[in-house]
Amino acid sequence: MPELRQNRVTKDWVIIATERAKRPEQLSVKRDIKPLPEYSENCPFCAGNEALAPPEIMHIDHDGKWQIRVVPNKFSALAREGEPTRKIERSKRTMNGVGIHDVIVEGRLHNTTTALLPEAHVANILRTYKARFDEISRDPRVQQVIIFKNHGGTAGASLEHPHSQLIAIPVISHQVRERFEEALRHFDEYGECIFCQVNDEELKEGTRIVVDSPHFVAMEQFASPTPFVTHIYPKRHMASFGAIREDELADLARVMKTLLGKLYYGLENPDFYFSNRTAPTENEGVKYYHWYISVIPRLTKVAGFELGSGMFINVVLPEAAAEYLRNVKVPESQLAAAGK
Amino acid sequence: MPELRQNRVTKDWVIIATERAKRPEQLSVKRDIKPLPEYSENCPFCAGNEALAPPEIMHIDHDGKWQIRVVPNKFSALAREGEPTRKIERSKRTMNGVGIHDVIVEGRLHNTTTALLPEAHVANILRTYKARFDEISRDPRVQQVIIFKNHGGTAGASLEHPHSQLIAIPVISHQVRERFEEALRHFDEYGECIFCQVNDEELKEGTRIVVDSPHFVAMEQFASPTPFVTHIYPKRHMASFGAIREDELADLARVMKTLLGKLYYGLENPDFYFSNRTAPTENEGVKYYHWYISVIPRLTKVAGFELGSGMFINVVLPEAAAEYLRNVKVPESQLAAAGK
Repeated sequence: MPELRQNRVTKDWVIIATERAKRPEQLSVKRDIKPLPEYSENCPFCAGNEALAPPEIMHIDHDGKWQIRVVPNKFSALAREGEPTRKIERSKRTMNGVGIHDVIVEGRLHNTTTALLPEAHVANILRTYKARFDEISRDPRVQQVIIFKNHGGTAGASLEHPHSQLIAIPVISHQVRERFEEALRHFDEYGECIFCQVNDEELKEGTRIVVDSPHFVAMEQFASPTPFVTHIYPKRHMASFGAIREDELADLARVMKTLLGKLYYGLENPDFYFSNRTAPTENEGVKYYHWYISVIPRLTKVAGFELGSGMFINVVLPEAAAEYLRNVKVPESQLAAAGK
Repeated sequence: MPELRQNRVTKDWVIIATERAKRPEQLSVKRDIKPLPEYSENCPFCAGNEALAPPEIMHIDHDGKWQIRVVPNKFSALAREGEPTRKIERSKRTMNGVGIHDVIVEGRLHNTTTALLPEAHVANILRTYKARFDEISRDPRVQQVIIFKNHGGTAGASLEHPHSQLIAIPVISHQVRERFEEALRHFDEYGECIFCQVNDEELKEGTRIVVDSPHFVAMEQFASPTPFVTHIYPKRHMASFGAIREDELADLARVMKTLLGKLYYGLENPDFYFSNRTAPTENEGVKYYHWYISVIPRLTKVAGFELGSGMFINVVLPEAAAEYLRNVKVPESQLAAAGK
């Protein structure tokens, strides 16, 4: 019998279709990936090609050279200058499309990926995220800061060179408003952050945990809309990514590398997205919301049912996905790289 | 300057990224489509292969043979028998996955598509939808009936033979509940169905209209999340697809064929989804909600920003998409087929 499960935070129902169930390893896509070169002549993000990208915003050095750099997105979705003026005309609501759209170049080499970088390097990527997050959050025009990564062609990445993006928007999206309302309602009823409560329950139950570290827990979602959606939650209550401490950041780098390594080796380098889901700038200190990182491998296709109903059909049991990822072994050479 | 626009019904904001704007015709994907045969030996939906599919639920005849038939989905997402019992365990909410999952086989031939069928044939497909919708809506376990179609591989279609699907679920999805709340709030404030109001405004303004017929209007969405999202609304207020009259149904067939023909010829047979967005069975007669058909061509990729923010970036101005589709000419031979 298939099972309907409700997401405890968003209240969305999903269908866990056990009749259609697939073993996790059946989802890994064996693709003909041609190995990439270390350097690509026309790539605006490769070391040596800095002049092909817009002027740098910041960088972090390593061994006297830039290791990570931030540049404005050349094809920005939003205009960096201007005021977010609203217009109201009968039922129509519009706003000037002002905001910030950065690219975080994650390394000098064209052919790496987060899962294969040394842990200290991943920590520097996270430090770069935090530096930009903190600065941009102070811009009074900004309401939400979204940091995200598209890895691979089907996940919408248009450039091969490892990079992530930051978009700061002058509005709080309806989805975020609505999730905040649900979280606030929970807090008012139970006096507790819904995320803290779920994390406690999940750590006790254990069946959906993938990585458990001192400061973070990575887990499959009880009502995962698609296979292998994995969230990384800080164990300490924090509404905003900006509240992360340096010791927590180093721990997060280890968890990110471990999780992405398990996806890389366990599901054959799948296309994936990740994004930080953090409080809007005006809600940084609230007791009822909890930031997290959502990692979404792109293993199946969304279809008309999902778009017509607002519900998803998931063919992999989240507990089976968690068990599968727990058992994926990252090769020794990679564990060594972690200590570099 | 890019523009943010708010969807008047769902309240979702989208970024219309004019700096990244593409001309509509730049989105059509020239693919190597090998022509399909009229008959395929292993296809469970081809005429002559009826025994390969589960036992028939209903059919519509034409010239003494079945023209359209309905069968249970062999890989059903839900169990047809059983009761939708809920379980509550601490913060976890689950329900037995009972419901109905039908396949509507849209014709005898393997290699047709709705855009190329005679109009009378399209009307019979819609009559089949309505017959199943009406019957299934009477099942007391059913709360929502979703009829949808996935056309093409990237839209999740796993079988080539033209077919659509119906899934009836024992729950009202959170997304639908939430849209109903917004629509009800609007009705309570303005005494008018938000959809009726928007349709009136749009018909007066004209810039986003694609097809205007006696009973229906097909239009691009003011705050379209992706390029060419086109909704078909009945002009008469109706909350449920089940309320459609026979004369309206014939008109809808003409509008569907015209719209899908414009996509087929204008965007080179793109992959697309459509679904009916109709009231839950318990809300069939409400004054504040309006059913419609949503047609979503799959021309761009969703990426991490969308999943991390709940907002979309659309690279095509909806007014440009509407103008483009208005100007697409369907060949004479197809207009003749419409009269068959």
